[in-house]
Amino acid sequence: MSCIIKKNLLLEGKTKKIYTTNNSFEILIHYKDNITAFNGLKTNFLQDKGVLNNEITTLIFQFLNSCKIKTHFIRKINNREQLCHKVNQIPLEFVVRNIVSGSMTKRLGVKEGIYLSNPIFEIFYKNDKLKDPLINDHHAVFLGILSYEELNIIYRMTSKINFFLKKYFLDKNILLVDFKIEFGKNYKNEIILSDEISPDTCRFWDKKTMKKLDKDLFRMGFLKEKVFDIYMEVLKRLNVSSSI
Amino acid sequence: MSCIIKKNLLLEGKTKKIYTTNNSFEILIHYKDNITAFNGLKTNFLQDKGVLNNEITTLIFQFLNSCKIKTHFIRKINNREQLCHKVNQIPLEFVVRNIVSGSMTKRLGVKEGIYLSNPIFEIFYKNDKLKDPLINDHHAVFLGILSYEELNIIYRMTSKINFFLKKYFLDKNILLVDFKIEFGKNYKNEIILSDEISPDTCRFWDKKTMKKLDKDLFRMGFLKEKVFDIYMEVLKRLNVSSSI
Repeated sequence: MSCIIKKNLLLEGKTKKIYTTNNSFEILIHYKDNITAFNGLKTNFLQDKGVLNNEITTLIFQFLNSCKIKTHFIRKINNREQLCHKVNQIPLEFVVRNIVSGSMTKRLGVKEGIYLSNPIFEIFYKNDKLKDPLINDHHAVFLGILSYEELNIIYRMTSKINFFLKKYFLDKNILLVDFKIEFGKNYKNEIILSDEISPDTCRFWDKKTMKKLDKDLFRMGFLKEKVFDIYMEVLKRLNVSSSI
Repeated sequence: MSCIIKKNLLLEGKTKKIYTTNNSFEILIHYKDNITAFNGLKTNFLQDKGVLNNEITTLIFQFLNSCKIKTHFIRKINNREQLCHKVNQIPLEFVVRNIVSGSMTKRLGVKEGIYLSNPIFEIFYKNDKLKDPLINDHHAVFLGILSYEELNIIYRMTSKINFFLKKYFLDKNILLVDFKIEFGKNYKNEIILSDEISPDTCRFWDKKTMKKLDKDLFRMGFLKEKVFDIYMEVLKRLNVSSSI
């Protein structure tokens, strides 16, 4: 394993910092302890959340790599940092919904908890000023973000990721209600899964009790300790070996 | 031509009334003089606007019928009324954009007037309470409004309608900036074009001066007389025989 030298801060987001390394094709992602919701309107500090999300994302991306999904993840470096392939981030959030929840209930005036016979795919334009609006494929192409062909590649990848993750979480007695993923293009211009997958970016419900196991607790105003405990519970469940 | 007997008021919208007739497969659409914008927040009375929109819609639907587009339009009955095939209205608005304008500028933070190399298609869920939100195909299918196959049929029809109408208006020195259309299912469950096509439902710009020739003038607060004159100008241009 070659030596990694953390170099300059490339960019800092709400919950992560990206550093360059001595390898120009690789970056180092540092998970911060911030937690934010409602497009950054609600924000707080949650001691060691970064440690949990770094570990949870590591486990999930290792699993997806083993499923032959192309991701940016190389390996975890330490408690708060992971080494990843450098990508040009695509400024879209791809949301997959298996059960109705969140913004979909408000947009369509429907109740939380309805199981979807076909998953719902949504794309949101990552733009803080515009408050990350829902857009469609035509908008994304017009904005010059992706071609229709590239969107189809991403939808196929997203569908596979959903297939693998639903099973993965169900095995840990967790319902994968919905999740948000992001993609980037590597130096070969290949589209690969990037960013993180954690209770910050997914809705998880306990399979038996339907208890929420994700950032919705923070959105709903639960105590920080409770939110931390729930993230810890997710990590514990992921660390238990598969029963299959 | 058989005798039409206007019977009961079936429903009344913001700008039209629908009546049953002595033929259970046919309805009578009455064009009112109301003009509304911003999901009904701005509303006014514009004497004889109904006469203009009835005539403009008649000319456009006659043209589309001649292009072999299946529409609900049968014939104009009098100044304010037209006879149409009865349909079960699909609660979606299909918007086609050839030039950036309107809500798209706000959603994507882009300037009005950009020509689109590919038309942009959008669907909005007709629901006053929810303020007619933008949705995508997956939402429409989840809501039980249409199947994916039916959506594709409508996109193909919409694309053809755009092709024919762009040429039709260009011939009258009008740029078809964008337009909203609606569809319904007839007694055979066939999807056909319904509703109206008029300066209420389209953005028209003069080809040379780029002057607006549509309801945007009402949205922008122009005097009623000016708005009426512009609708009249559109009608006059449509009545001039094609130069081709």
